Amino acid sequence: MIVVPAERLLKLGKDIFKAQGLAQEKAEFLVETLVEANLTGHDSHGVYYFVTYSERIKEGYIKLDAEPTITRETPTTALIDGGYSPGQITAKKLTEVAVAKAKAHMVSAVGAFNCNHIGRIGYYTNWAAKQGVVALMFVNVGGPSVAVHGGMGKSFGTNPISVGIPTEDAKPFLADFATSVVAAGKISVARAQHAKIPLHWTRDKHGKPTDDPFAFKDGGWLLPFGEYKGYALQLVSELLGAVLTGSRVGMEPDQLPPSTNGVFMIAVDPSAFVGLDTFRGGVDDVIRRVKEIEPEPGKRVMIPGEPEWESKESRLATGIPLPEETWDGIAKLAEELGLRIEDY
Amino acid sequence: MIVVPAERLLKLGKDIFKAQGLAQEKAEFLVETLVEANLTGHDSHGVYYFVTYSERIKEGYIKLDAEPTITRETPTTALIDGGYSPGQITAKKLTEVAVAKAKAHMVSAVGAFNCNHIGRIGYYTNWAAKQGVVALMFVNVGGPSVAVHGGMGKSFGTNPISVGIPTEDAKPFLADFATSVVAAGKISVARAQHAKIPLHWTRDKHGKPTDDPFAFKDGGWLLPFGEYKGYALQLVSELLGAVLTGSRVGMEPDQLPPSTNGVFMIAVDPSAFVGLDTFRGGVDDVIRRVKEIEPEPGKRVMIPGEPEWESKESRLATGIPLPEETWDGIAKLAEELGLRIEDY
Repeated sequence: MIVVPAERLLKLGKDIFKAQGLAQEKAEFLVETLVEANLTGHDSHGVYYFVTYSERIKEGYIKLDAEPTITRETPTTALIDGGYSPGQITAKKLTEVAVAKAKAHMVSAVGAFNCNHIGRIGYYTNWAAKQGVVALMFVNVGGPSVAVHGGMGKSFGTNPISVGIPTEDAKPFLADFATSVVAAGKISVARAQHAKIPLHWTRDKHGKPTDDPFAFKDGGWLLPFGEYKGYALQLVSELLGAVLTGSRVGMEPDQLPPSTNGVFMIAVDPSAFVGLDTFRGGVDDVIRRVKEIEPEPGKRVMIPGEPEWESKESRLATGIPLPEETWDGIAKLAEELGLRIEDY
Repeated sequence: MIVVPAERLLKLGKDIFKAQGLAQEKAEFLVETLVEANLTGHDSHGVYYFVTYSERIKEGYIKLDAEPTITRETPTTALIDGGYSPGQITAKKLTEVAVAKAKAHMVSAVGAFNCNHIGRIGYYTNWAAKQGVVALMFVNVGGPSVAVHGGMGKSFGTNPISVGIPTEDAKPFLADFATSVVAAGKISVARAQHAKIPLHWTRDKHGKPTDDPFAFKDGGWLLPFGEYKGYALQLVSELLGAVLTGSRVGMEPDQLPPSTNGVFMIAVDPSAFVGLDTFRGGVDDVIRRVKEIEPEPGKRVMIPGEPEWESKESRLATGIPLPEETWDGIAKLAEELGLRIEDY
């Protein structure tokens, strides 16, 4: 592990994508979302993607000049063709449109298709919540890695859901998780450490429970969280994220472009109900009372979003730990693009 | 167990509530939702409530003459004061308003407060889906029975969520579940059978894992499903169902009126996206392909809503099995109201 300050990754990342032809403002946003993922502790969605996205740019799957455009619109809704721009750029537009329409008409729904990987979806719902709206997001991942409940083999992606809720003084409330028990990234971490994994995370290629983190890569699959309940939400993300927006469903393996997302967001302005101030005050009150609950021995009671905030505070102060392999890959990419790593 | 035809329960139930002064149309709807719960296999939300609701009517908690009224409205939203009418009557109005507003403006959000127990929430999302809209519902239960993740004691209700999605030829897609691992009703069933329960369902009054179904009634508590993920959704139902609508939060025990619900529904018209026909066709296609997945040995792959449909087909044909205690309670109530049970 080496530890890199967030500032350094922000500057270096921006220049890496600018050097490939991405406009400055877009490069800044794209890199901000990736560094934010590391800061909040979600390294599987972080600067590791500098290299992956650059490969996809070279292969033509991510189109740097594309502009997401609205193809269908009403005062309360929009359907966005991402044009295979960087997924974060499409998701940014989707979120901005959803928030603006909710503020104008109290509730909105916006979808996106032809959308590359958008990264950690909590980024967008958290941003929306900070603008004073409730945001719900359902995203399909257009390539299978997770079984259905009771079924053999990979059927759907990790199909995350996220809900961001405005707060007053409390840190933002942010539910944000894959509908699999764990994201594939957690199994990569276990592989790197040659650690065993819990039996309810994956099945091996024969469908048997296993604590071997290598079995997933060797023809195994992830399981949905919470048995039939998480499975139901896995399908909701598929039906809203992909089918409703006209995006690719996740059931076919090895389709190109790789790792697309079908994205669907609903935004609600609390002004239409108890009002924004009363709502935020009430949310804070529930959060305060939850934090007063006596924890189980050896446990903590945390608010959804709180682990991310703790990680961010800590990593802003001390830097972001990266596996040397990740840093070396970024440094090599920077060099290939004519950047002097020691300038950052 | 005795087996009673659904028709008999519908007629008897309607007259039971009419005899107490509920208008005929409201009595028919209320009883239809309860019998439908039994038909779909959710006996914990079924005709058992004939007696419970009648007690609450007598105690003045359910107000038969109250009309739910909209207290705040925009073209896309409404906030409904249920006035402590039967909860089903408030939820019916909420659903009708949400569907009408979604059809007029593509997306809507409707909340309700001063709302009695609304029964099985899948009834409403399923009805909305049959009208051709996607419906999401978040409901708080205004009395605590479930712990927070990592915390001791009862903090929130079983706070269910439900998503109904329109289909073409396939049976409706219906996600509908408590955010606790199980509803309290399943533990009652285990108690009645003196059966052991899985260790992840409840804790005893000391916070210890237990397989004793009596421990929950003796100061124990339910656990949220899917660890921190189900816990996050438990809070989402609390914040949207209760705080956003101005309903009672679930943290205080023994408040009156008993068992209130704070209700929040979002409805989306697929016409604003790929269009209703394309959406329904795409949903059917995903369902068909999921049903083709090879099951794990000894398991079945089922679509959310399918267990309910199977139960309904079976119980419409053969009748609804009721514990004799439940039937006797209903018969006694009917007699007290001057109804001749043998007329039904």
